[in-house]
Amino acid sequence: MDAMQRIEQALNHAISHGETPDCPPLLAAALRYAVFPGGARVRPKLCLAVARACAEDDPLITDAAAAAIELLHCSSLVHDDLPCFDDAPMRRGKPSVHAAFGERLAVLAGDALIVMAFETLARGGARQPQRLAELIRVVAQGVGMPTGIAAGQAWECESKVDLSDYQRAKTGALFAAATMAGAAASGADPEPWRALGDRIGEAYQVADDILDVTANSEELGKPVGRDAALGRPSAAKELGMQGATDRLKSLVAETVDAIPPCPGAEELRTLFVKEAEQFLPKSLVMHAA
Amino acid sequence: MDAMQRIEQALNHAISHGETPDCPPLLAAALRYAVFPGGARVRPKLCLAVARACAEDDPLITDAAAAAIELLHCSSLVHDDLPCFDDAPMRRGKPSVHAAFGERLAVLAGDALIVMAFETLARGGARQPQRLAELIRVVAQGVGMPTGIAAGQAWECESKVDLSDYQRAKTGALFAAATMAGAAASGADPEPWRALGDRIGEAYQVADDILDVTANSEELGKPVGRDAALGRPSAAKELGMQGATDRLKSLVAETVDAIPPCPGAEELRTLFVKEAEQFLPKSLVMHAA
Repeated sequence: MDAMQRIEQALNHAISHGETPDCPPLLAAALRYAVFPGGARVRPKLCLAVARACAEDDPLITDAAAAAIELLHCSSLVHDDLPCFDDAPMRRGKPSVHAAFGERLAVLAGDALIVMAFETLARGGARQPQRLAELIRVVAQGVGMPTGIAAGQAWECESKVDLSDYQRAKTGALFAAATMAGAAASGADPEPWRALGDRIGEAYQVADDILDVTANSEELGKPVGRDAALGRPSAAKELGMQGATDRLKSLVAETVDAIPPCPGAEELRTLFVKEAEQFLPKSLVMHAA
Repeated sequence: MDAMQRIEQALNHAISHGETPDCPPLLAAALRYAVFPGGARVRPKLCLAVARACAEDDPLITDAAAAAIELLHCSSLVHDDLPCFDDAPMRRGKPSVHAAFGERLAVLAGDALIVMAFETLARGGARQPQRLAELIRVVAQGVGMPTGIAAGQAWECESKVDLSDYQRAKTGALFAAATMAGAAASGADPEPWRALGDRIGEAYQVADDILDVTANSEELGKPVGRDAALGRPSAAKELGMQGATDRLKSLVAETVDAIPPCPGAEELRTLFVKEAEQFLPKSLVMHAA
C-alpha cells in the first residue's frame, strides 16, 4: 500500500468512528466533507516518511499520528475559511464548509476534528503507552498555544507582527509536528526532527505566498490574492517576488541538510527532492533544483 | 488544599503553559479570560470526587483530568456564545469572550482550549502511561463526535431533534466524561461510572432549563429566556414547569443510586446531597430533598 492509500484509509477509519446511528447527521456529513477529498496530504506524508526513516515498528500508531496531523490541518482550514477570518467561499475546488453547511456547523466541525485528532492518537497509540504522552505533546504543540496554528492565526489579530513568528506558528508548527510525530510514533526522540519540519514549513509558506500572487484560482482551488486583500503578512509582499523566490531556493537546500542521522536518511533525502517538484510551482522548482 | 483550590491551581498551571514571551498576547489574554474567574467548577469537582472515591494514588494525573474537563467546558461556552450560535453578550457576569476580544479571538480561544485540554492530560499522565489512552478516550467522548458536546450543539442545526439525545450530548456527555475520567485517572474501570455522570448531567440540564425560565439575569450572570428566544429544546418547554420539577426530583434520587461500588461510596453520597443544594435553585432543592 502506498503512502497516499495508507493516509486515506487511516483518515477514513478515524472519521468512521464519529459516524454512528445516534450522531447528528449534518455534522457527520460536514466532517467527512472537510476531510475528503483531500489536497496533497503533504503533512501526513511527511509524518509517514519520517516514521519509516526512524525504523517504524508499529503501523497502527504511525497511521494514527499521520491521520491526527491531517485532521488538525483540515480543522484549521475550516475555521480559517470562516466569515470572521478569510470568509473564503471555496476550498479544494468546492464550496468551503461554512458555505456548504453554514457557519455553525463549520465551527462545530472544526472543533470536532480537533477532538477526533487526539482521540485517534489515543486509539492508535494504546498499544504503545510509553510513546503516547510524547506523541500527544508534539502534536498539540503544532496547533495550540503558545506557538501552534491557533497562535499563528491569532497573530493576525495583533497590531504588530513579526513575519517569521507568524509564519512559523501558522504553517511551520504543524510541519514540525508532522516530522516530530513521525519520530515519536517510531519510538525515536522527536526533538532532532523539529528543525526539518520548520524548514519544510517555511518553504511551503513562501511557496504559498508566491502562488497567492502568481497562480489563478482554478490551479489553487481557492481564491487568489487573499493575502493582499486581507492585509496579511506575506513573503511576496515583504521580500518582493525575486526575494521570495531566492528565499524559497535556499530553503529547499536547507531542508535536505536538516535531516537528522537515522536509518533511512538517504531514502528521505531522495523523497524530499521528488516531493518538492510536486508541491512547488513548476517554474520555481526548475530554478530551485 | 480543598477541591476548589486544587482545581484553580491545576487550571492556572495548564493556562500558564500557553503563556510565553513569543505567544500572541491577545489570544493568551482571551484564554485566561475564558477560564478565570470560573463558575461553580461543578464538572472538575465531580471528577476529583470520583477519583478520590476510587482511591486516587497520583494527584498529578487527577489534577490533569479535572483541569482538562473544565478547559473543555470553558471552550464550549466560548463557542456557544458566538454570534452564529447564542450571540450571548454576557457570561459569568462579564462580557462574553467574543464581546470582549472579538469573534476571531473567540473562535481561536475555543480551539486552543481544546488542544490545551489534551496537552494537559498528556503532561499530567506521562507518569501513568497505562492509564493515559483510556483517559483521553473518555474525555474525548464527552466533547466530540458522535455523542459529545459538539454533537449536542450540532443537534441545534437539525430539523428533527430528540430532546433526550440532544441534552445527553450537549450536557450529559461532559458530566459522564468527568466521572469516567476521575475513575480512569485513579486506574479504575471508567465504564461503571458512566451512568452516574449521565444522571448528574441530566439533572443539571433540567435545572438549567428551569432557571432559564424562572431566574433573573443577575442571578445567572447571563441573559435568561434564551432557550425560548432561540427556539431550543428545553425540559421546561417540553414537560411544563411542574413536569420539569418532578423530573428533577427523581433525577437527584437516581444520582445517589447510580454510585458504583467503590472504596469511597459513602463519602461521595454525602457530597452529592450537599452539592445538589448548592447548584440547584433553592426553591427546588427544598422540594427535591
